[in-house]
Amino acid sequence: MRPGAELTVVLHQTRSPDNLGAVCRVMANFGFERLILSEPVVQDFSAAERMAVKSGHILSGMRVAPTLAEALQDCVYVVGTTSRTQVVRRSPLTPEDAARRLAEESTRGRVALLFGGEQRGLSDEDLTHCQDLLVIPTEDVQPSMNLAQSSAVLLYLCHRQGLTDAPVVPREEEPGARLGTLGALSGRMRAAMLAADFLNPEAPEHVLHELERTLMRARLTQREAELWLNAFKHLVRAVAPGTSRG
Amino acid sequence: MRPGAELTVVLHQTRSPDNLGAVCRVMANFGFERLILSEPVVQDFSAAERMAVKSGHILSGMRVAPTLAEALQDCVYVVGTTSRTQVVRRSPLTPEDAARRLAEESTRGRVALLFGGEQRGLSDEDLTHCQDLLVIPTEDVQPSMNLAQSSAVLLYLCHRQGLTDAPVVPREEEPGARLGTLGALSGRMRAAMLAADFLNPEAPEHVLHELERTLMRARLTQREAELWLNAFKHLVRAVAPGTSRG
Repeated sequence: MRPGAELTVVLHQTRSPDNLGAVCRVMANFGFERLILSEPVVQDFSAAERMAVKSGHILSGMRVAPTLAEALQDCVYVVGTTSRTQVVRRSPLTPEDAARRLAEESTRGRVALLFGGEQRGLSDEDLTHCQDLLVIPTEDVQPSMNLAQSSAVLLYLCHRQGLTDAPVVPREEEPGARLGTLGALSGRMRAAMLAADFLNPEAPEHVLHELERTLMRARLTQREAELWLNAFKHLVRAVAPGTSRG
Repeated sequence: MRPGAELTVVLHQTRSPDNLGAVCRVMANFGFERLILSEPVVQDFSAAERMAVKSGHILSGMRVAPTLAEALQDCVYVVGTTSRTQVVRRSPLTPEDAARRLAEESTRGRVALLFGGEQRGLSDEDLTHCQDLLVIPTEDVQPSMNLAQSSAVLLYLCHRQGLTDAPVVPREEEPGARLGTLGALSGRMRAAMLAADFLNPEAPEHVLHELERTLMRARLTQREAELWLNAFKHLVRAVAPGTSRG
């Protein structure tokens, strides 16, 4: 699904302006724009603006539909979000599968992600409008998610589905540390730590190697290795002024 | 990661009781319990109860730490949540990779998911406490997510990670370095390198942090961190005999 292309978010019987505003914000975060309120419980949602940070365009473009049927009428596919306890005789999708289905179905036309009201969720009657249900798996101690938070989880997944495998950040790897530099570093570490009475002069290797191994594991860049080398050059000069030419 | 087993949620410089309560609720949704507020901007969070539906046990068990360093001191691995614009010269993890890393690292000890404050997020200094950063990919129109909603996305993924790939392989690893020990090491490195004229006393942080990051990346064991700490204690004593009590 190209973010925003075909997904409609439908909030059914929503009550809280805060939730409405927060849903607008997360829609903007993830590139979705079509929002429909169906059969809202409260009519005055002006308070939603406070939470709809940088997403006022979604709030002002929102449609209000008197019934769920009207809200969904131009969609080809609807997934209803529900909690485990509401699912009767239907196998719910996982959130990831639902995001995948929404993306697939969006090639055919508009698709909707439907959320129920804060107090009762979606009724059996509401669910008859949905081709599929989805359940966000939660723990028994608190199975019910906040509306704005469940929308965050699901819109994130829909967005990811659209992005799929696109590289998030083009990583340009810096050149790795050359062994010559690491060898020089090891020599300075030994000198400084011997002069500081940290290493046992009879058998310095064991502890020194243990420290060196931690730096190997860090997969230093050449730049970082040079930084460490330079630090230990200074330390050697300071600890044992006569013994090193820096 | 068995949900809740080792993950600590750390909220740094949080301002809004509503957000705090909402984070508690979503932690309960996904089976997490350890919550630490570090350096909270507001001290009275009693209003959080309203949003902490069926998650009062998390709110009442929450710890408050005066500094970020203290909040993180018993953790072996920390991922900081940040926005694209804050990431400088570090490659952030995707949310999915971060959830995977948290699960892997949790075999070594406590791990933390760190969130910045509502207004400014995490500072560069805050980010030096993090082995990794993560960015939730968002759209340009509104790149900044609400705190409670980003926690919903990430805790969902951590929960999924625990459910899907469950017992990550009960590896018998050596205990990882605690951040408290790494913090002490950082202090000694600074002292030694300042006394040795390696660090610029006007601006020691930049280079110091670069060196610290290489040690973070090495995923030191507690034993190795203590070895480095001990080495630098000796170096401080040798370079600046008067300034340290070792």
